[in-house]
Amino acid sequence: MMNDVTIDDFTVGVLGGTGAQGRGLALRWAASGLDVVLGSRDRERAEAAAAELNEELSSAAGAATVRGAGNRDAAASADVVLVAVPFDAHEKTLADLLDVLDAKIVVDCVNPLGFDKQGPFVLDLDEGSAAEQAQAILPGSRVIGAFHNVSAVLLADLSITDLDTDVLVLGEDRDDVAVVQQLVDRIPGMRGLFGGRLRNAGQVEALTANLVAINRRYKTHAGIRITGQGL
Amino acid sequence: MMNDVTIDDFTVGVLGGTGAQGRGLALRWAASGLDVVLGSRDRERAEAAAAELNEELSSAAGAATVRGAGNRDAAASADVVLVAVPFDAHEKTLADLLDVLDAKIVVDCVNPLGFDKQGPFVLDLDEGSAAEQAQAILPGSRVIGAFHNVSAVLLADLSITDLDTDVLVLGEDRDDVAVVQQLVDRIPGMRGLFGGRLRNAGQVEALTANLVAINRRYKTHAGIRITGQGL
Repeated sequence: MMNDVTIDDFTVGVLGGTGAQGRGLALRWAASGLDVVLGSRDRERAEAAAAELNEELSSAAGAATVRGAGNRDAAASADVVLVAVPFDAHEKTLADLLDVLDAKIVVDCVNPLGFDKQGPFVLDLDEGSAAEQAQAILPGSRVIGAFHNVSAVLLADLSITDLDTDVLVLGEDRDDVAVVQQLVDRIPGMRGLFGGRLRNAGQVEALTANLVAINRRYKTHAGIRITGQGL
Repeated sequence: MMNDVTIDDFTVGVLGGTGAQGRGLALRWAASGLDVVLGSRDRERAEAAAAELNEELSSAAGAATVRGAGNRDAAASADVVLVAVPFDAHEKTLADLLDVLDAKIVVDCVNPLGFDKQGPFVLDLDEGSAAEQAQAILPGSRVIGAFHNVSAVLLADLSITDLDTDVLVLGEDRDDVAVVQQLVDRIPGMRGLFGGRLRNAGQVEALTANLVAINRRYKTHAGIRITGQGL
């Protein structure tokens, strides 16, 4: 049904857009020419963050603009919605937006991780993953998991023009996966690959703990690439 | 303590060495000059597999030889032991070898996966991962997780001289991790990176389900690379 959809005229909503991950992806999408509505629980914080991003984007040729809004407004205004809230706000944020997220593609990039003296660890969720939790809360939405393993530090720096990372896109519907792959491919140096069904999202979320461990040991901002002939 | 250990004179034992993963790694280690003892529940099957591998290795310059043996002999004869049994034999195989594996580095590459009509999925283990299960069964051994995401098809073909994949090496002890990184680095095109503590092994094991999904969708033999400045 949606095979021929192009996202060129899409508006992207970012829930939790004042956090590092949401903010970084918003910056990159706007730089690629997509209108973005940055959502937050606190509209004024979202507007302040949007103003900062627009300032950064003012020197980027072909950039669109970012608008700050409350999470509900961001969800309602958007063609596709990224969920980038902290995990402890995940369940409530989505439940509160059940009506406005209905029938939409909801891209979940939330990593359910904890941190202690030994570093990062994975939280054990009844649903298996944040993406599956989102789908359970939002039965009428089309949940896709993606952007779990992307460095917010690299996203935030527009002078980095090759992110050098693949994004595993997880979901049940091929056409929805293809739409999210287009969102990935708008960011320079990123490639979106189908990464399996939603039930295999948990380990992709959790892999972020390994990337954090790698970052600490090797003093880097790690990403992943998938190798293989024909990819 | 072991920082200066080189594995050049090590003998590697491979438990479950007649399976595709154990056999492929045995082939590559022997090709690099390491003596390998291929173990199986059934000594005669191990000897037959070893004979086949030695045939393949006969044209490889500098190759060592592979000896077939029972799993107990393979474990007892080796300086470092790879566990490559099917997951349903994991617990019992290790429990039976508790004495001969004591104090050794035990490298676990077992992926606890199931398959149904929708493809691969991850089994839910009380211990969190096969590697942690191994450490629980073998409290006196030094368990390291590694080689989870390596294509057995590519390993088996000695004409492929660049495996083009990183191996995440997970463990508690830096020196043991370094020994296993040396095992990785003996295989052409592979790079061993510290990937976190053992409690973060589960998602690396489980990621194999995503690679299987990628293999099916893109008709490839997928591997992973970690990107990042300075790596």
